[in-house]
Amino acid sequence: MKLIMAVIQDKDSTRLSDALMKANFRATKLSSTGGFLKSGNTTFLIGVDEGAVDEAMAIIKDNCHSREQIVAPISPMGGNADSYVPYPVEVQVGGATVFVLPVEQFEQF
Amino acid sequence: MKLIMAVIQDKDSTRLSDALMKANFRATKLSSTGGFLKSGNTTFLIGVDEGAVDEAMAIIKDNCHSREQIVAPISPMGGNADSYVPYPVEVQVGGATVFVLPVEQFEQF
Amino acid sequence: MKLIMAVIQDKDSTRLSDALMKANFRATKLSSTGGFLKSGNTTFLIGVDEGAVDEAMAIIKDNCHSREQIVAPISPMGGNADSYVPYPVEVQVGGATVFVLPVEQFEQF
Ligand code: NI
Ligand code: NI
Ligand code: NI
Repeated sequence: MKLIMAVIQDKDSTRLSDALMKANFRATKLSSTGGFLKSGNTTFLIGVDEGAVDEAMAIIKDNCHSREQIVAPISPMGGNADSYVPYPVEVQVGGATVFVLPVEQFEQF
Repeated sequence: MKLIMAVIQDKDSTRLSDALMKANFRATKLSSTGGFLKSGNTTFLIGVDEGAVDEAMAIIKDNCHSREQIVAPISPMGGNADSYVPYPVEVQVGGATVFVLPVEQFEQF
Repeated sequence: MKLIMAVIQDKDSTRLSDALMKANFRATKLSSTGGFLKSGNTTFLIGVDEGAVDEAMAIIKDNCHSREQIVAPISPMGGNADSYVPYPVEVQVGGATVFVLPVEQFEQF
């Protein structure tokens, strides 16, 4: 048994939950802030059998990896015209920081 | 020193806190959601000496184990009459998922 | 790679975050309650290279160690006059409970 602790962005949280559940992994989510990832983030705790670590890691990677996203310009209604960008821009989203911890004993009561 | 991480139901949280404190264990609670247990849950972090792991596990088991509870029927005032169950039913409550992690260094400042 | 889990008082949280960031450590904060420390507390997760554990521990100690603070008397406007203390008192603040956990695998996606 291993305990996977994965810090991911909030925006990928539902997608990761669904993918893990579909593959019969069970996760607990801790709400967390700042740190490894700049925006709001969530820490997943996932208990997995030794032989399933790679599968769980692949699911985390697939659903949370850092990637670029094209963001369309938004007209600055009521906003600051100085910061208005009139063309689509690429921003970095997602990303995951993942620790796999050894577990000495695992119980379900 | 070991670190016990126990995911339990919110409804057992106060009871477990009290029982741990009475036995001189000190716990930190992280609020968590979903996952190992269906309803709202709480993750306890409990630092324990090697020789006290069994005692702490017994306290968690005693206070959080999965059990059936008889729920009296509630009349569906303003609710959905289709889902109204007119007789007492047994529902599963409680349960705990517990990881015991090795600790390489422990400090209190 | 090691995972440092540090439970500290809320009042030291910003100071510790800043000090860790300045030293190029990256931390995630989990909000937590009760337990190891009496007042509101925060649990930091800090992933560090083996050779940097001592440096991170020193930063935690420096910014969160238990100490006495002189609290000036506050006049009990609208409060309970019975609990009014008319002279400065020393109170215990701060403190940290820190676990260093082994990490078997570490990934950033
Ligand atoms: Ni992709
Ligand atoms: Ni019982
Ligand atoms: Ni000092």
